[in-house]
Amino acid sequence: MNVDFVNPFLSSLQNVLSMMAQIDLQPGKPALKKDDRARGDVSGLIGMIGPQTKGSFSISFEEGLAIEIMHKMLGEKPASIDDDVIDMVGEITNMVTGGAKRILGDKGFEFNMASPVVVSGMNHTIKHRSDGPRIIMPFNHAAGKAFLEICFDKV
Amino acid sequence: MNVDFVNPFLSSLQNVLSMMAQIDLQPGKPALKKDDRARGDVSGLIGMIGPQTKGSFSISFEEGLAIEIMHKMLGEKPASIDDDVIDMVGEITNMVTGGAKRILGDKGFEFNMASPVVVSGMNHTIKHRSDGPRIIMPFNHAAGKAFLEICFDKV
Repeated sequence: MNVDFVNPFLSSLQNVLSMMAQIDLQPGKPALKKDDRARGDVSGLIGMIGPQTKGSFSISFEEGLAIEIMHKMLGEKPASIDDDVIDMVGEITNMVTGGAKRILGDKGFEFNMASPVVVSGMNHTIKHRSDGPRIIMPFNHAAGKAFLEICFDKV
Repeated sequence: MNVDFVNPFLSSLQNVLSMMAQIDLQPGKPALKKDDRARGDVSGLIGMIGPQTKGSFSISFEEGLAIEIMHKMLGEKPASIDDDVIDMVGEITNMVTGGAKRILGDKGFEFNMASPVVVSGMNHTIKHRSDGPRIIMPFNHAAGKAFLEICFDKV
């Protein structure tokens, strides 16, 4: 998996949160380790299928950051992760993947998106099971961390 | 979503666990409620895309049942959900979806599968965000419960 394929997801996540919630995430250091499962409190996942490859993408938020995004985006500040936060994470997942899909389409990488799924539960972990390498990218914010994960069979 | 589309997933799950682990799941009552999120300790998820529709499928296991399947399938009995259990749940997800895909293909419903993703974490919940109805099907076993969820945009 080359960096041209990963970068659109990173920049799309930063763009979506900056535009929708005026939140600037500070990118950390990407990692490739197999046993590095991202840990979050609410995660959006989406499956992707293209002519040459298939894979999965997820974005996990710590509770504090998810609630801060909700507050900035919609003016609400729930005490914990509720159904509105879950729906917001699903929408963010859709928007980030859609943004990455457009950028990649311009570069000749086409894929289709499945429907997003949102997982909630304190400290859950996610393991992508494609054959290819798993890229994990942490992001920092004063309100909490986010972890972007992407995995494709081969690109 | 008609029952012809859901049944292949139910029977495929029962077949896979019966053949691979000699475990017979007792099907409970399927439900359609929007707010009924399945609760499990380890879940396999997979995205699906067809020419007419897209959706997602998940199967969640309570810890006791996941460990019992591991024990029956591979002879190992870990104290809690470990990396081997997570991999096993990913494989089961692949096998169940593959089995359903074959049955549905024979009926003229074609779809492609994304890569499976496995979520672990006590009491996590899953929300499918397709536009269509979400079918939730509980299964009972002495060792614990399983919850199958399937959701498609339209069929």
